[in-house]
Amino acid sequence: MSQPKYLTGDKAAIQEFLDRFDVFLFDCDGVLWSGDHLFPKVPETLDMLRKAGKQLVFVTNNSTKSRADYKKKFDKMGIEAKVEEVFGSSYSAAVYIARILALPPPKNKVFVVGETGIEQELDAESVPYIGGTDPAFRRDMTPDDFAGLANGSALDPDVGIVLTGLDFHINYLKMATAHQYLQRGAKFLATNIDSSLPMSHALFPGAGSTGAGIRYAAGADPVALGKPSQAMMEAIEGKFHFDKARTCMVGDRLNTDIKFGIEGKLGGTLAVLTGVNKKEDFLREGSEVVPMAYVDVLGDLVA
Amino acid sequence: MSQPKYLTGDKAAIQEFLDRFDVFLFDCDGVLWSGDHLFPKVPETLDMLRKAGKQLVFVTNNSTKSRADYKKKFDKMGIEAKVEEVFGSSYSAAVYIARILALPPPKNKVFVVGETGIEQELDAESVPYIGGTDPAFRRDMTPDDFAGLANGSALDPDVGIVLTGLDFHINYLKMATAHQYLQRGAKFLATNIDSSLPMSHALFPGAGSTGAGIRYAAGADPVALGKPSQAMMEAIEGKFHFDKARTCMVGDRLNTDIKFGIEGKLGGTLAVLTGVNKKEDFLREGSEVVPMAYVDVLGDLVA
Repeated sequence: MSQPKYLTGDKAAIQEFLDRFDVFLFDCDGVLWSGDHLFPKVPETLDMLRKAGKQLVFVTNNSTKSRADYKKKFDKMGIEAKVEEVFGSSYSAAVYIARILALPPPKNKVFVVGETGIEQELDAESVPYIGGTDPAFRRDMTPDDFAGLANGSALDPDVGIVLTGLDFHINYLKMATAHQYLQRGAKFLATNIDSSLPMSHALFPGAGSTGAGIRYAAGADPVALGKPSQAMMEAIEGKFHFDKARTCMVGDRLNTDIKFGIEGKLGGTLAVLTGVNKKEDFLREGSEVVPMAYVDVLGDLVA
Repeated sequence: MSQPKYLTGDKAAIQEFLDRFDVFLFDCDGVLWSGDHLFPKVPETLDMLRKAGKQLVFVTNNSTKSRADYKKKFDKMGIEAKVEEVFGSSYSAAVYIARILALPPPKNKVFVVGETGIEQELDAESVPYIGGTDPAFRRDMTPDDFAGLANGSALDPDVGIVLTGLDFHINYLKMATAHQYLQRGAKFLATNIDSSLPMSHALFPGAGSTGAGIRYAAGADPVALGKPSQAMMEAIEGKFHFDKARTCMVGDRLNTDIKFGIEGKLGGTLAVLTGVNKKEDFLREGSEVVPMAYVDVLGDLVA
């Protein structure tokens, strides 16, 4: 595998790299911002790309936000973006459930372990669900819960799917309930299984971590609909009809973003060092996932 | 590997099996009871063994109870037992931390993700701790928590160990806090990593499941002090000084109880079918863990 090209400070190399692509898929957390901290020169970089006629798509595994929520986040951060340019793992999961899995009603109800972003995207695709942000599931487990889950009286017989995403309100009751549905044959999906979430310049447990208890209890892995799943690439491609050879994936994570681009046979991948992975992770001998090029921060493309 | 002997209904085979051992190590949940449901003829079976001069030790991975709590549970269930006969994974973990790990104070403080059983056993070994059942950790994560954990101001600089056990109050704040300590070099221990907990004739998430989010976020496995860890066998042996060749482990789980006995080179293992594993699990071709003998229910030994 060839060494990735380091672009920071090399104007000619940057121009040559950008000229190879018409479409840029951007990860958001760890690339554009970390939590509420916008990285330097991000709006300028995106403006430069738009002015050069590039198509931008924001591809995020963050399942806590719907596309509409994401649009608000972009507005708040002072970044121009349209709802149609956003593609989240919650949306990807909702599309997969409604159009690919397409279980016959009423047995297509989803038990959601996650936040409002998932609920909004399921609503948009008219998929019925329970759980999620319902306060009835945000409490301690009681002896009655153990009994009711064990004998099934506390379960909804129409639930055919368990969908896990990042859940800041994960608790034992949700884990136990999801576990019971899975033991009774529910299909197991995840918006994504990222181990960590970059926030405030640090790493916090990600969707894969808040869902790990259910995975471990069930002894089974979910179908993950976020990056690097190619189900997400197919969904994006179906919507935007781009030329893969002229498309570049930009991200901070090797095992999600960069892998997503490589396995999706995109023309290129660009790593930024403002998130989870450091350059040592892909420059070391034997790294399994190596980007085509990298910059220290995204803003280096216009610096 | 030879086929396990089925003892139920075979008086002569039972007698021959019992005569081979002086000491019986019993798992509790799934063997003596499931939750608050006592299995048939359990007191009679234990009485019969005591009258035959056998030594009984109750070896449990349930970390939510201290040895004293367990004694109360035995009393409530109408089973005779002494505190000294109980050996729990919380006790095993406390002994390991205090006597084996023996970090120099004050950097030996433990961040506990678990219930009161762990706290009581750490107290008994004079190990300092935070977390556990402290209400300050039983709440939603706030933006200030993200900031304080990221910059370290919300962390106790003396914490050198993260210890996870079964936690019915697992939440994002605890997971994120444990994750930060681990990223800062804290040692990672678990009372046990059982995937499930038998309750009300059903399976619920066990200690390995409530701790799985922290494991997945950290990308590291803890040193597990419960069965099948031989650290627990050494601790039991150190206390009771029994002859391993004349000792039998009785349990419902292949990958904890039976494995514990086999890897500990005990004289025998006896599986009961009232818990997690079914006989098909060890009778099938290629099963990695096979008990020496099995009965349908423990009470079959006196039936």
